[in-house]
Amino acid sequence: MKKSALLLIDMMNHMEFEGGEDLLKNTIPMVDRLKKLKDRAKGEGLPVIYVNDNFDHWQDNTDAVIEECMNSKGKPVVEKIVPEDDDYFIIKPKHSGFYGTQLDILLKQLDVERVIIAGVATDICVLFTANDAHMREYEICVPEDCSAAESQEAHDSAMRIIKQSLNADIQPAEKLALGE
Amino acid sequence: MKKSALLLIDMMNHMEFEGGEDLLKNTIPMVDRLKKLKDRAKGEGLPVIYVNDNFDHWQDNTDAVIEECMNSKGKPVVEKIVPEDDDYFIIKPKHSGFYGTQLDILLKQLDVERVIIAGVATDICVLFTANDAHMREYEICVPEDCSAAESQEAHDSAMRIIKQSLNADIQPAEKLALGE
Amino acid sequence: MKKSALLLIDMMNHMEFEGGEDLLKNTIPMVDRLKKLKDRAKGEGLPVIYVNDNFDHWQDNTDAVIEECMNSKGKPVVEKIVPEDDDYFIIKPKHSGFYGTQLDILLKQLDVERVIIAGVATDICVLFTANDAHMREYEICVPEDCSAAESQEAHDSAMRIIKQSLNADIQPAEKLALGE
Amino acid sequence: MKKSALLLIDMMNHMEFEGGEDLLKNTIPMVDRLKKLKDRAKGEGLPVIYVNDNFDHWQDNTDAVIEECMNSKGKPVVEKIVPEDDDYFIIKPKHSGFYGTQLDILLKQLDVERVIIAGVATDICVLFTANDAHMREYEICVPEDCSAAESQEAHDSAMRIIKQSLNADIQPAEKLALGE
Repeated sequence: MKKSALLLIDMMNHMEFEGGEDLLKNTIPMVDRLKKLKDRAKGEGLPVIYVNDNFDHWQDNTDAVIEECMNSKGKPVVEKIVPEDDDYFIIKPKHSGFYGTQLDILLKQLDVERVIIAGVATDICVLFTANDAHMREYEICVPEDCSAAESQEAHDSAMRIIKQSLNADIQPAEKLALGE
Repeated sequence: MKKSALLLIDMMNHMEFEGGEDLLKNTIPMVDRLKKLKDRAKGEGLPVIYVNDNFDHWQDNTDAVIEECMNSKGKPVVEKIVPEDDDYFIIKPKHSGFYGTQLDILLKQLDVERVIIAGVATDICVLFTANDAHMREYEICVPEDCSAAESQEAHDSAMRIIKQSLNADIQPAEKLALGE
Repeated sequence: MKKSALLLIDMMNHMEFEGGEDLLKNTIPMVDRLKKLKDRAKGEGLPVIYVNDNFDHWQDNTDAVIEECMNSKGKPVVEKIVPEDDDYFIIKPKHSGFYGTQLDILLKQLDVERVIIAGVATDICVLFTANDAHMREYEICVPEDCSAAESQEAHDSAMRIIKQSLNADIQPAEKLALGE
Repeated sequence: MKKSALLLIDMMNHMEFEGGEDLLKNTIPMVDRLKKLKDRAKGEGLPVIYVNDNFDHWQDNTDAVIEECMNSKGKPVVEKIVPEDDDYFIIKPKHSGFYGTQLDILLKQLDVERVIIAGVATDICVLFTANDAHMREYEICVPEDCSAAESQEAHDSAMRIIKQSLNADIQPAEKLALGE
């Protein structure tokens, strides 16, 4: 099996924007599954890479981003999935985790050929990170039960495209093979 | 009004792939509207830029791509919208018109700040070109009646994301302001 | 005059690599001039952006990078030019400050059209950042007395190319116009 | 041995710019060696990829670029090294062959891990293409007798940086191992 990495998209999130309440509501029931997936991934020795909005910080300062999110409306999600010391943390300025970041360079350095993408929101940063991974010829998995959007309809539209246009594996996390 | 350009995505197309017949069927009724939009754009002095799949040509050879498509199942579409001598033509190797191409450089050289994106397929190359334009801070319009996909459902899912996640103007072409 | 920004390349530097001693020796006499240039730039309201090697940190963690460099052979340089709270700090994984970073996005957000590039080493990260700025159509200045390399010859070779191939303004910092 | 490709930089060249006469004069004695290297490379089954300035064509039209250069001051060089049907041809809009082009995508598709870079000018497009290849972790060779610049001094400054900053193999073409 190709070497995989788990990408957690925008999980350090203050949820303080228009529609944030809906996103928070839909993320809370998903975060425990995501944490379980993260734990399984770490158990198998997979790199876990947080790929996270800069929320208008321009100092590439992970600690500042995390602290701000811990003290925000996003806390019920953030506190359950806070990065550990051996996780990677990449700050992204735009929708796609690959645009204006060192993500592709890091993945190559780690010999990763398959990315498992999870987080929020399905129809924005998850979708566009998935396409950028696909264009760079990574094999992609986007477990349908480990991302969330502001509405079920938005989630479903995005998952449909992720499956059909990007040819991704969208099985639920539980069924996903991680290691060898 | 910001200076605009019209991007025609994958309109030189042989339609010879799985699902190509469905895409062709849905593109035929759209191509006349697209031609009308192109004519209006040229009348207003807007640059028209074909952004087109390389179809596994790796010689950046526009003429070869066009000729191949003229002699293919795609002919009913291709012959109605074939590039004119003063149109730009950029070959793209992947879904997004910005990835591995000189599109962004050309747009900046032309002082373009707003792109009107049309063509096929809505849920693949149109969608992902639109997001890449959005991340590069172009204002984007994707007239809902000038793109097509293999199914209406696929078209609708993509248009929904283009409108909501990318904040695009999706009015029908007729209502779109082009020049000053 | 076009809006300018000052880019400080790899000034948070542990100098602990082959040739590091020579680079340190040549950087020490330059750092006071660079600090003076930085102070002038801030006095004129220009953004100051540290663009700095990640030194194999992959957590985008500015504080960790600075702290490591303060406790290293690079200290005599680092302590004189340590970032202030209102400076930007961008971590780069490779030679060019634009490759795999959000530098271009930040510069556009700040409406910067002219970059003043200083730091180390002239013939590696300064040179290749300068070319990437040039390709992106920024006007570039590389004051010849505010960068350093492992040898004078290396510095001179690079400055020659920066002047001739990139058409940069290489006047000494003192003569450089910064604001309006 | 890693799979290699030969990149020919700006060899379709009208030489009609300031300094073009000097560049032409220095390229004429080099082009026969380059042709010999190209023939050896093709004999070994290596992909040969022309990576060439667009000379302000924005139609990605290889044939138009070649024809223009055949009828220009550059003819004495161009006619000796004109692309064959099975060569790749990539049009670049800026100094580096990787910026705004599909070069990286093509190299990955061909499983290339080592690039041999030759052509003109050493201190501009050869140098900056070499750095972009290095940042993308290709092994690089820039045979010192298969590139040229407007002056010997410019050539030497660039070769020095290519060797020292990029760690390239700069042996003369004759000594270069190509295949297995």
